Amino acid sequence: MPQISEKGNAIPASPIRKLVPFADAAKARGIKVYHLNIGQPDIETPPHAIQALREADIRVIEYTASGGNPGLKEKLARYYQNIGIDLTEKEILITSGGSEAILFAFLSTLNEGDEIIIPEPYYANYTTCATLAGVKVRTVTSVIENNFALPPVAEIEKLITPRTKGLVIINPNNPTGYLYSQTELEELANIVKKHDLHLYSDEVYREYCYDGALHYSVMNLKGIEQNVILFESMSKRYSACGIRIGAIVTRNRDVLATALKIAMSRLCPPALGQIVAEAALDTPETYFTEMNRTYRERRDFMVEALNRMPGVTCPTPRGAFYAIVRLPVDDADRFAQWLLEDFSYKNQTVMVAPASGFYGTLGRGKDEVRIAYVLNISDLKNAMEILSVALKEYPGAKQA
Amino acid sequence: MPQISEKGNAIPASPIRKLVPFADAAKARGIKVYHLNIGQPDIETPPHAIQALREADIRVIEYTASGGNPGLKEKLARYYQNIGIDLTEKEILITSGGSEAILFAFLSTLNEGDEIIIPEPYYANYTTCATLAGVKVRTVTSVIENNFALPPVAEIEKLITPRTKGLVIINPNNPTGYLYSQTELEELANIVKKHDLHLYSDEVYREYCYDGALHYSVMNLKGIEQNVILFESMSKRYSACGIRIGAIVTRNRDVLATALKIAMSRLCPPALGQIVAEAALDTPETYFTEMNRTYRERRDFMVEALNRMPGVTCPTPRGAFYAIVRLPVDDADRFAQWLLEDFSYKNQTVMVAPASGFYGTLGRGKDEVRIAYVLNISDLKNAMEILSVALKEYPGAKQA
Repeated sequence: MPQISEKGNAIPASPIRKLVPFADAAKARGIKVYHLNIGQPDIETPPHAIQALREADIRVIEYTASGGNPGLKEKLARYYQNIGIDLTEKEILITSGGSEAILFAFLSTLNEGDEIIIPEPYYANYTTCATLAGVKVRTVTSVIENNFALPPVAEIEKLITPRTKGLVIINPNNPTGYLYSQTELEELANIVKKHDLHLYSDEVYREYCYDGALHYSVMNLKGIEQNVILFESMSKRYSACGIRIGAIVTRNRDVLATALKIAMSRLCPPALGQIVAEAALDTPETYFTEMNRTYRERRDFMVEALNRMPGVTCPTPRGAFYAIVRLPVDDADRFAQWLLEDFSYKNQTVMVAPASGFYGTLGRGKDEVRIAYVLNISDLKNAMEILSVALKEYPGAKQA
Repeated sequence: MPQISEKGNAIPASPIRKLVPFADAAKARGIKVYHLNIGQPDIETPPHAIQALREADIRVIEYTASGGNPGLKEKLARYYQNIGIDLTEKEILITSGGSEAILFAFLSTLNEGDEIIIPEPYYANYTTCATLAGVKVRTVTSVIENNFALPPVAEIEKLITPRTKGLVIINPNNPTGYLYSQTELEELANIVKKHDLHLYSDEVYREYCYDGALHYSVMNLKGIEQNVILFESMSKRYSACGIRIGAIVTRNRDVLATALKIAMSRLCPPALGQIVAEAALDTPETYFTEMNRTYRERRDFMVEALNRMPGVTCPTPRGAFYAIVRLPVDDADRFAQWLLEDFSYKNQTVMVAPASGFYGTLGRGKDEVRIAYVLNISDLKNAMEILSVALKEYPGAKQA
């Protein structure tokens, strides 16, 4: 039988994915499972964007330009201008979701054996993209005791070798919800400039900042304009994960031209998703005000409920819709499986994402889970009650 | 300024892409350009499939499963069963277009430095996917004198080294329109088995076979069931290139599991395209009968018109909607550019794809172009007239 590739074998199986059969089995036993494990919002996609698709006069669903429809790129450029980022459509390449932006940017800029640095915990799909590009991820650890702030820049600089070619920053962060300050980003910029690194910045949760906090984009950092590559996605902003529309945004024309050569091999991003995305860019401000209020309420409710449980630590995330939560358990992977396999409360249980999958350092995050607050308050309330009972019953519970 | 990757630099710029600015300039001068250069059919997408999208009750455009919607996979499996290929949905992974299927399959099965063999001329995007996987493409040449039939298997076997891990076959072929016979495929199967290679088969033009010719799928070859990986696409079959829905189809569960790990990093294939694809799989047979008749007429008209031009050779393609045509010109790249830059006839011109981009062997295809017969007969008639005049006027014309 012919081979599987080394890279394919090297992609770690996701701890969440390992839980899926247990969740399915629980559901098959008639147990209601509250999904706190995934970032699939329940908020409606802006109705006018779906309507735009319904009303589009399509007779042949044709290829679009490989880099995306000009109309979509122009509107996205205007969106950036409106939020104070000076960009034109010439600096935008539309991709099939933010995930394709990551893969194409890595393949465009990194060689086999190169290294990139990412503060951990970090969105696990970066590992797969790095593996496919033959790139090693090195991590600095941000810690729950410090609310997952950026570790001291000196820590990051210690990891730089001649093979280090880039830094990845996720802001607001998935999975921690941490929102980086302008000062933190300026400190990062100094290293980026000094070592001439790529700075890959994932800002797909830009609209999800709470408590009046302002998002500062790496696109506005001075002196590293040619180093910055932004990963964009319409998925979360417009609660339209399924349209698969994202973008690579960079002022570095060589990077964009290279990414376009790769993009041409996949012909074009989804034509239908682009129609929705273009219309979605006209979404009125009230949508975001309302969405923001909804998530802030959920967050406040959840953080309070969690911190009331004995031995549980949940920092208050200032962005995105995730939190990394420390639980009084021996092993969060085991606990997450036990929740689905051996536990139920009033015929219900919860599914959480073990945090181990978000760390590069082995053994880190062993007593942490990621919780996405994408459920309505009523469901979230049930989920918190279930979790609270579970923590009392779990045989591997630590003494609080 | 930070680096561009070696792979990014190694992706060849497409000869067609180089022509685009000249085509744009011609249009800006008010010249009508007939596009014979791209495989974008003008046939309507089945209206009921577009209607299914319009009527879908969507309020949140959510992620789908990473491997595609179960309903779509089941219908696709039934489609295979109906055409005599014994497959279940467990052997299908839905991808974002056939192009993603190629990339994910290569990344799943090939290592840096591996080699694959492809009969040339071949669909140029395989070069990009191979480059991104760090894989070298070696080619055997199929020649116009032999209607682009499969070269003798001995020729192929000569290229096999310890690094050879796979063979790619495109059937019906893009760009030649050649339809491989069962005997040819069985000969290929012998080498595949003997050397335990992957056999990647691109059958996206399966429905486009003419003159009563029957398509034989590699999926029905005996003794190499674990070696065969099929690249599928809905784009051409349903004239729905923009939906970006394809599939990796294989009985090799290890390959499929590895491709799924990669697929999970991009979350899911386009949700809206999947709705169209699932509905499209119910397209009545009459759609294909009609489409087939349309293309056969266009082909017959074009082949006759071309072969009437002095010094032009166009074999009769038995599948797909392309032909590789030999022209009496010094250099087809130069001719194609001249058509756009320096020539017009009644304020019109044609755009053709120089064949050089479809060959791995340098210098091959220098007097050949690929012509896609995706225009209606009236436009095709004009296009042929323009081409005929151009060949007489072109300063680099060979004596016929």
